[in-house]
Amino acid sequence: MLLSEVGEFGLIERIRKICPGYGNRIILGIGDDAAIVESQSGRSLILTTDALVEGVHFDLRYVPLDSLGWKALAVNLSDVAAMGGAPICCLITVAIPECWNVERFELLYQGIIQCGERYQCPIAGGDTVKSPSSSFISVSVLGEAQAGEIKKRSGARSGDLLCVTGELGGARVGLEVLRAGEDESDFYTKSISRFLKPIPRIAESQKLISELSVTSMIDISDGLASEIRHLCKASGLGCRLFGDRIPVSDETVRWAQKNGISPLEIALESGEEYELLFTVDPIILNRKTHEYSSKQTGLFSIIGEMRPQSEGLQIRDGSRARTMANKGWDHYLSGMSIG
Amino acid sequence: MLLSEVGEFGLIERIRKICPGYGNRIILGIGDDAAIVESQSGRSLILTTDALVEGVHFDLRYVPLDSLGWKALAVNLSDVAAMGGAPICCLITVAIPECWNVERFELLYQGIIQCGERYQCPIAGGDTVKSPSSSFISVSVLGEAQAGEIKKRSGARSGDLLCVTGELGGARVGLEVLRAGEDESDFYTKSISRFLKPIPRIAESQKLISELSVTSMIDISDGLASEIRHLCKASGLGCRLFGDRIPVSDETVRWAQKNGISPLEIALESGEEYELLFTVDPIILNRKTHEYSSKQTGLFSIIGEMRPQSEGLQIRDGSRARTMANKGWDHYLSGMSIG
Repeated sequence: MLLSEVGEFGLIERIRKICPGYGNRIILGIGDDAAIVESQSGRSLILTTDALVEGVHFDLRYVPLDSLGWKALAVNLSDVAAMGGAPICCLITVAIPECWNVERFELLYQGIIQCGERYQCPIAGGDTVKSPSSSFISVSVLGEAQAGEIKKRSGARSGDLLCVTGELGGARVGLEVLRAGEDESDFYTKSISRFLKPIPRIAESQKLISELSVTSMIDISDGLASEIRHLCKASGLGCRLFGDRIPVSDETVRWAQKNGISPLEIALESGEEYELLFTVDPIILNRKTHEYSSKQTGLFSIIGEMRPQSEGLQIRDGSRARTMANKGWDHYLSGMSIG
Repeated sequence: MLLSEVGEFGLIERIRKICPGYGNRIILGIGDDAAIVESQSGRSLILTTDALVEGVHFDLRYVPLDSLGWKALAVNLSDVAAMGGAPICCLITVAIPECWNVERFELLYQGIIQCGERYQCPIAGGDTVKSPSSSFISVSVLGEAQAGEIKKRSGARSGDLLCVTGELGGARVGLEVLRAGEDESDFYTKSISRFLKPIPRIAESQKLISELSVTSMIDISDGLASEIRHLCKASGLGCRLFGDRIPVSDETVRWAQKNGISPLEIALESGEEYELLFTVDPIILNRKTHEYSSKQTGLFSIIGEMRPQSEGLQIRDGSRARTMANKGWDHYLSGMSIG
């Protein structure tokens, strides 16, 4: 059977099935943003890893090496944030072709170090190996959280409000502008920065957990629509999405209009956004409305409501309601992917 | 500056220099077999990662996929053993070309799972991505040890005896026999198994630490000579090696004689042996001589004595004493490496 027939998520399912039980120490294994390992003193360890491959996840013709280094670590920090944790340290594995010079290698590392300093995640070790062709970066991050504050994607309850931090679409726009080498990149600086140097929402995650007791959380690496699907599936629920409340960045709206694409579709499908998607009890949120009334647009937006599984995934766009298209994000289904 | 001019260890040194301080939690960072992170309750966390790249570290024409999976995890477990720890769990990152079918992928995973079950290191998560050409496996292992039982490579003292577990040379012989596709592979089954499915010395490490209070430890991934050099450098010492006491496997002696190579040179330079090289106080070892007199050849051999740095690295081979050649193991200096 070809890999393209089962896809990335199919492969993950198959691995999960052939893996034996986790034993006592692994509280959460394959299938969430990160793994959780029991530790002493009521704290849990968080482990996550993500790899970026040249020609699949990045193209060095328009991605500077220091941005690449930053991003390789940031995407892992985003997974730690999505579990409700803070990073402790990271391991960096780099495979590089012999034609690279030392300066290129160090530029890559400077990006990793810059991101690690910004988010207090020092490099504890790693491996540097030769690659016969493409370059490859694999980062693993160790993090931790109070055991009770771990946020799985499976914790949402029917009636919870679905929320997302920030504004969506910029990562896709940034990639498209860079890829096209357009002269007007000056109009899309925020989007380009968002694509090249994503901001992991670690501080935001801590704030949301302590102030709003969020019930589930996931980060948007594969696109909003795809992540909502993951969250619904893991929680055994459906969802009603308010299309007109999904926050789309100004630059995304401008680029979408220019290219005759719906901004909403970009916001739903753009991968690598690294915002937090989470659910919260409406009673708790209502109680805090006065605190969030001014901040709400800044920190997060309420974009939907969790519903029983039987209702499926509905999106209300203006006066129309439709079932959300099942477009996943999958490196084995897409050709040259942006994720 | 070209990568080949600085080499792998030169690159590690450069990374170490540009990395900022580790903060309070990282007790041991870049430069040992694994990183050590402070944990609660007197326990330390051990983090290590190692990558294998097709065409650099393995050749699928003679390495079965399940062996490759086993080995990818085993080499990391060997690093955990070298620190004196036991594994908790692992993360698996695999980059594979689209032409692979699902069965190949699962065979690779079965090898990983088999090794993980044997050494109690379940898979906690990972990442599966597409590679445009060669396949690539990166494994990270989280382990732990009592804080006082962590064994660095820097702990040796002048006068300590230098010891090594097992018998050396088989990994090199196994690789050569497989690579040559020789008909006589039946004569080298132990060597082939040693190359394809190395045994991480986790139980041996625990036993040596509790019974002999070893002062430093390192595993032999880059060859005995190279690892002795690392241990000496980290401990600020020299070493006098007893060439005739270095344990060489029977198959290595046979293969070496047939090919007109010195068995001792193979034992000194063969990479991927994954035995433990360690130092121990001679007073403690003498006190236990009666316990080890019968087992000694089985569990470990005394192969040298740590000396002041000024004496350098000497090897006594029969009646001759010579300075050990500075042949390192380096993916950037060697062409198609076996390490």
